[in-house]
Amino acid sequence: MGSTIGNNFVVTTFGESHGKNVGAVVDGCPALLELCEGDIQPQLDRRRPGQSDLSTPRDEKDKVRIVSGVENGLTLGTPICMLVDNEDQRPGDYKEMSNVPRPSHADFTYREKYGVMAASGGGRASARETIGRVVAGAVADKVLSTKFGVSITAWVSSVQNISMPDVDVKDISRELVDRTIVRCPDVDTARLMETRIAAVRDDGDSVGGIVTCVCQGVPAGWGEPIFDKLEASLARAMLSIPATKGFEIGSGFAGTLMRGSEHNDMYVQRKYGLGTLTNNSGGVQGGISNGEPIIFRVAFKPVATISLPQNTVDYDGKPVLFEAKGRHDPCVLPRAVPIVESMAAIVLANFI
Amino acid sequence: MGSTIGNNFVVTTFGESHGKNVGAVVDGCPALLELCEGDIQPQLDRRRPGQSDLSTPRDEKDKVRIVSGVENGLTLGTPICMLVDNEDQRPGDYKEMSNVPRPSHADFTYREKYGVMAASGGGRASARETIGRVVAGAVADKVLSTKFGVSITAWVSSVQNISMPDVDVKDISRELVDRTIVRCPDVDTARLMETRIAAVRDDGDSVGGIVTCVCQGVPAGWGEPIFDKLEASLARAMLSIPATKGFEIGSGFAGTLMRGSEHNDMYVQRKYGLGTLTNNSGGVQGGISNGEPIIFRVAFKPVATISLPQNTVDYDGKPVLFEAKGRHDPCVLPRAVPIVESMAAIVLANFI
Amino acid sequence: MGSTIGNNFVVTTFGESHGKNVGAVVDGCPALLELCEGDIQPQLDRRRPGQSDLSTPRDEKDKVRIVSGVENGLTLGTPICMLVDNEDQRPGDYKEMSNVPRPSHADFTYREKYGVMAASGGGRASARETIGRVVAGAVADKVLSTKFGVSITAWVSSVQNISMPDVDVKDISRELVDRTIVRCPDVDTARLMETRIAAVRDDGDSVGGIVTCVCQGVPAGWGEPIFDKLEASLARAMLSIPATKGFEIGSGFAGTLMRGSEHNDMYVQRKYGLGTLTNNSGGVQGGISNGEPIIFRVAFKPVATISLPQNTVDYDGKPVLFEAKGRHDPCVLPRAVPIVESMAAIVLANFI
Amino acid sequence: MGSTIGNNFVVTTFGESHGKNVGAVVDGCPALLELCEGDIQPQLDRRRPGQSDLSTPRDEKDKVRIVSGVENGLTLGTPICMLVDNEDQRPGDYKEMSNVPRPSHADFTYREKYGVMAASGGGRASARETIGRVVAGAVADKVLSTKFGVSITAWVSSVQNISMPDVDVKDISRELVDRTIVRCPDVDTARLMETRIAAVRDDGDSVGGIVTCVCQGVPAGWGEPIFDKLEASLARAMLSIPATKGFEIGSGFAGTLMRGSEHNDMYVQRKYGLGTLTNNSGGVQGGISNGEPIIFRVAFKPVATISLPQNTVDYDGKPVLFEAKGRHDPCVLPRAVPIVESMAAIVLANFI
Repeated sequence: MGSTIGNNFVVTTFGESHGKNVGAVVDGCPALLELCEGDIQPQLDRRRPGQSDLSTPRDEKDKVRIVSGVENGLTLGTPICMLVDNEDQRPGDYKEMSNVPRPSHADFTYREKYGVMAASGGGRASARETIGRVVAGAVADKVLSTKFGVSITAWVSSVQNISMPDVDVKDISRELVDRTIVRCPDVDTARLMETRIAAVRDDGDSVGGIVTCVCQGVPAGWGEPIFDKLEASLARAMLSIPATKGFEIGSGFAGTLMRGSEHNDMYVQRKYGLGTLTNNSGGVQGGISNGEPIIFRVAFKPVATISLPQNTVDYDGKPVLFEAKGRHDPCVLPRAVPIVESMAAIVLANFI
Repeated sequence: MGSTIGNNFVVTTFGESHGKNVGAVVDGCPALLELCEGDIQPQLDRRRPGQSDLSTPRDEKDKVRIVSGVENGLTLGTPICMLVDNEDQRPGDYKEMSNVPRPSHADFTYREKYGVMAASGGGRASARETIGRVVAGAVADKVLSTKFGVSITAWVSSVQNISMPDVDVKDISRELVDRTIVRCPDVDTARLMETRIAAVRDDGDSVGGIVTCVCQGVPAGWGEPIFDKLEASLARAMLSIPATKGFEIGSGFAGTLMRGSEHNDMYVQRKYGLGTLTNNSGGVQGGISNGEPIIFRVAFKPVATISLPQNTVDYDGKPVLFEAKGRHDPCVLPRAVPIVESMAAIVLANFI
Repeated sequence: MGSTIGNNFVVTTFGESHGKNVGAVVDGCPALLELCEGDIQPQLDRRRPGQSDLSTPRDEKDKVRIVSGVENGLTLGTPICMLVDNEDQRPGDYKEMSNVPRPSHADFTYREKYGVMAASGGGRASARETIGRVVAGAVADKVLSTKFGVSITAWVSSVQNISMPDVDVKDISRELVDRTIVRCPDVDTARLMETRIAAVRDDGDSVGGIVTCVCQGVPAGWGEPIFDKLEASLARAMLSIPATKGFEIGSGFAGTLMRGSEHNDMYVQRKYGLGTLTNNSGGVQGGISNGEPIIFRVAFKPVATISLPQNTVDYDGKPVLFEAKGRHDPCVLPRAVPIVESMAAIVLANFI
Repeated sequence: MGSTIGNNFVVTTFGESHGKNVGAVVDGCPALLELCEGDIQPQLDRRRPGQSDLSTPRDEKDKVRIVSGVENGLTLGTPICMLVDNEDQRPGDYKEMSNVPRPSHADFTYREKYGVMAASGGGRASARETIGRVVAGAVADKVLSTKFGVSITAWVSSVQNISMPDVDVKDISRELVDRTIVRCPDVDTARLMETRIAAVRDDGDSVGGIVTCVCQGVPAGWGEPIFDKLEASLARAMLSIPATKGFEIGSGFAGTLMRGSEHNDMYVQRKYGLGTLTNNSGGVQGGISNGEPIIFRVAFKPVATISLPQNTVDYDGKPVLFEAKGRHDPCVLPRAVPIVESMAAIVLANFI
C-alpha cells in the first residue's frame, strides 16, 4: 500500500526483480508536453547494471516503452504508463538460499510482513524496483526543466572514506559527472574511488558512500508546511531508496557544530531579488524553497550482498555459513546517482 | 495543504504562535482506549518554554483540553480534538522587524509563498506550532504503549561538539533523560552541555545539536514499501520539525565508512524468534521493522534568533544591522526531545 | 479515519453531539482572503435547530469562533480552526434507550464497528456533526464567490409527494429560498409542505424529501477524471450527509427514460463561448464542468427518530416496544439546505 | 490527477482508447492469494464489445496479462500490474469530427481542461478506460469472495421505461444474469428490452437504463464515517463510471415518499445476530454496513454517440449538422453490469 507517492504529480510504481515487467504510472503530468522514450532512456541507461566492470554483470537492455498518456509525441494530461521488460531472469540463482534470510537484506522482514519467502532475488526489495522511480523521475525532470528551467544533478561525493573536495555547484552538470565511471566529478578523487571499489570487489566485499544532489532554478515558494515541507518530502523520498541510511540538507549534521551567528544565512540583494550570502539552509527555510540551490546529501550503506561467507542462522535458527551466489554490485553509488535525481524530480514536480 | 499526516492514524494540526488556540485533531485512534488530559499534559510540560533559565522566558501554561472523541474517559473511535490556549501574546515584540526578513527564518519564504508578512512571531513557522504535534503524539504514544508495549525515548546526545558516550538503549528511559535539565542522560556530559548553553546565551548567540531516539518493542512487519517505508516515514516526520537539518537511522552516515562485511547484521536465534547480533540497520530492513530497536538521530541547527546584531538587508534590499528583540531559546534541544518522540509515535501509530 | 475530505482544500471535522465542541479545520484556504465569523454565522443560523415550530426545540446558540488561520481579518494561508460549543447537553434523554438499537439509526452499526454503545444521542452519527461541514463550507463558499463569482443555492424541491414546479435556476437565490420556513422558493408549494410536516409531526411521525442544488458560475474545466470526476465527488459528498439515500445530476434517473437524440445537449454559441441549449448533462461532461449550471438533487429519507412506538428488539434480541424520547425534527429538509450547499462548496473549492 | 482510488486497496488505472495498452495497478492486495489471468478474464469478457449484435462491432480480444505482483500463481503483497492491448485502432474514424465537439461527449470539456483536442475517440473519456476498472475489480472480487464470502451481482433492471419486476436478491447470481444477452435476469423483461434496443439501434438512436447491484455477505462494520461512509464511497465510485447520472441506495428516491414509521427497518433476531425485517436502509446505517444485503441502483444515460444527424456548432461556434461515424453501442447497459460490479468490489475491498 505504499507504492504511490505525491498528490499532484502522482507516481505509482510496480514490478519485482523477476516478474515480466517493471514500470510506473505517472498521473498529473501537464498536457501538451513533448515527451517520448528518448527523454526517458538516458537516465535508465545511467541506472542500468553492467555499465562497467565495477557493477553487476547482470545484463538487461532496459528499454522503456510508453504505453499510454502520450499521443503524437505530446502528453494528453492523462496517466502515463511506462514499461520495462525483465529479460534476464535467473530465479535458479536464488533457490538454494531460500531457507536463509540474507543478512541486512529484506528477506526476513518481507516474510514477517507478507508471509512470502523471497523466492526470487528480493522481489520488491530488489534494486530493480528503482526502474519505476527512474522512468517516472525522467518525466518529472522533463516537466521541471521545460517549464521552470530547474536542473537537478547528483554525483558521488564519497566512497567509504574517500571524499571529493568542495565543489561550486554552479559548475556541476550531468555531463561532468559522467566523465568518470564512478560518477564523481573530481577526476582525481574518482580514480581513488575506482581503485577502492575494485579492491573491495576483489575481496568479495562491498562499500557504501554518499551521493550529493543539487537542484538549481527552483523558484521561491515551493513546499507545504508543516508536514509536507520541502526538506521533509525530500527526506522521505531519499530514505525510500534501497540501501539509504541518512539524509541531510544544507549544513546538515555538520551544522550542529556551528553557532547561530556563523550558521545564519544573511540576505543580500541579487539581480532577481533577495538571495543569501551563504547557503547553510540548503535552499529551504521553514519548509519552503527560498530560491537558492537546494543541496542535500544521501548516505548509502555498503551493499548487503557480498561474496564473503557470513556466519548467520537460517529461518529455523540453525547456524549456517552463508555464501551469496547471485550477481551484485560491490558499490551501488554510481548507479544510485540517477535514482537520487529521479526522486528529487518527483518530489519537486509535486510542488509545482 | 500540508497540515495533515498519516492515512490510518491521521493527525491534523492548526494554530499560529499568536492566534487564540493551537492544537490538533487525531482521527483513527482506536475506540475504548482510556484517555484523559493527564495522559497528554506531561509531554506538553516537557515541551513548554520556561522550564529552566536555559530556555525562553515566554510563559505559557499550555494546558490541554480534549473537546471531542472522548466520553467518560474512553475514546469513541471518533476524531479527538485537543486545544491549547495561547495566553501570553505580545505581537508588539515583532512589529519593528516587519520590514526585515530575519536571517535563516521563514519570514521571507512565507511572504513569497503566501504573500503575507510574518506580522506575529513567525506565524505557522513558529516553534509554537509543535504543540499540535506533541498533543497528537501523546495520544499515539498511549495507543502504542497500551496495545503493543512500544516505548519511545529520545534524548540530547550532542550539543555543538559536546557528545555523550555510547549508551545501551535498554537502560534508557524518559525518567533517566529528565534527570538533567538539558535532557542528556549522561550526567557528566549534561553538565558540560549546560555550561556551553549558558555561555552561548550570555554571548547572545545560540547552538544546535543532535537528538537521538529509540523505539523499543516495535514488532517485526511495520512499514509499507516502497514509498512509505518505515525509515522514509520517520525521515519525513523528523525533517518536518522546525530547525532540523538531518536524519540518520542505524549506522547512518558513519555506516558509509564501513565495508559490507562489517556492516551486515548477522541473524541470531533469540527466545522470541530471529534477532540480529548488531543493529547497523537501526531496526529496519527493506523499509519494514525487524523487531530490533529502531534507532535514529536528528540534527538540529543552532537557533536562528540571536541577540547579536546581524548584517543583512530588508525586503527592499537595503542593508540593515538587524537586532532581534523577541524571546528565544539559546538551544532548543532539550525542548525538542518530546517533539521527536511525538513525531516518532505518530509515524508508528500509522503503521499499526 | 474518514473525517477528512479533499486534497487541496482539505476539511477535517470533529465533534460528537454531546461533547464540549464541534467544529472543523480547513487547510488550503488561500491567504489574504477577508474572513471573519460574520461570514460563517449566517449559514450556521440556517442550519440551527429551533428556527421554527417545524423543527426540534433543542436550543443551541451555535456561535462559531475562528481560533487560528486568520489575523486582522485576513486569512494567513494556514489551517483555519473553527469551534462551536455544545451548550444544551442532556445525556439523560438517551440513557434509557441504551440497550435498544434505535431502528434505522446508527446505534447498531457503531457498536459493531467501534464496540462503543451510543451512550449520548448518536455520537458522531448525530445531525450535530454537520456543524463542522457548515462552518467549513462557509469558508469554501467565501473563496468561491470572492475569487470566481460562483454562487451555490439549494432548496427543498419535494417533501414526501409534494413537489414544486420547475424553476428557472437563474431566478433562484438564498434570499428567495428563505422566504418560507420550509425553504421552498415556490410559496404555494411551501404552504402545502408546511401543512404536511405539521400533520406528520402531530402524528408523531416524520417525512423525507428532496433537496435540489444549483452551482452557477463554475468555469469549464473543473473535475479530475476518472475517479475524482466532478459528479463523483459531489455524489460522495452528498451521500456522506446523514439521512441521504440518493443523488442524481442533470437528467438523473428520469434521463434513463429518454433516447439519446432527446437527451444530448446541443452546443450553441454564447457571448462568452460555447454553451448548451439544454442541460441534461447537469453542467458536467466526462467528469469536468462545462460552464453550464451544475444541478443535482439529493434524496433524504424520513427522519428515523419518531414518537410512534416501534416493534423492534434490543441488543439481546428480546422484543421491545420502543418509544423514542429525545428531541427531533419531523422533517430535516429545511435545515439540510445549508448542509447541501456547504458540501457542494467544499467539493468545488477542492477543484480550484 | 484522479486516476487513483482507495487508500488500503489502491487502484490506479491508465490507458486511452487508442494507445498501446489500457490497464491497472492494484496496490494493497493481500499476499498469498491464488490469482491468475483466469480469475480476471471472465469479467473482461463480459465487458468486451462485440458480444452480440446489440453492441458495438469493434472487435478487441481484450486478453489480460498480469506482469507483476504474482509469482507461481500466488500474490506477493506487492503491486499487481495488469495490461490489456489495444489492437483494433482506427484513429481515422475520428479525424473528420475533430473540429466539432460531439454533443454530450467530453470533447469540449477535455479541450477546456487539458488544451488537447480529442483526436482519438474520446481519449481517457472513452468507454475503453473501464477495462482498468474491470481488471482491478476482478482482483478485489477474488479477495472479497475468497476471504469473506462476499458475492457481488449486478443486472440490468431497466432499459428506458421497461423495468423488471421485483426480485428476491437471494436468488440472483451472475449465471442467472448472463442467461440473457441483455443481462436482465427476468427472461420476459429481457426479451422486451432486446426488442427495444434493436429498434432504437435501427433508428440510429440510443437508450439508457438502470443497473441494480447487490453485495451479499458483507459483515457489519465496514465504512468510515463521516466522509468515507460506505454509501458515499459507493456513490463516488458509481458516478465515476462513464455515462452515469444517478445513484440511490436502499429505498433511494422512492424512500422520500414514505413516512418514517413505514421506512424504518425494525430489528429482528437472526441466527447469526441482529438483522432487519425490511431493508430500506440498503444494508447501511450511519455509513457503516449492518450485515444486510447492500443494494443500490445506478442510472445510465442514453449513449451520447448516435447515428442520427444532430444540429450543433463546431468549436468556432459555426452551426453544423453533425453525423457520428465511429463504432458505438445503442445501449451500454449489458456491458455496464461487470463495470458496476467491479467498482463495488474495489470500494468494498478498500474497507476490509
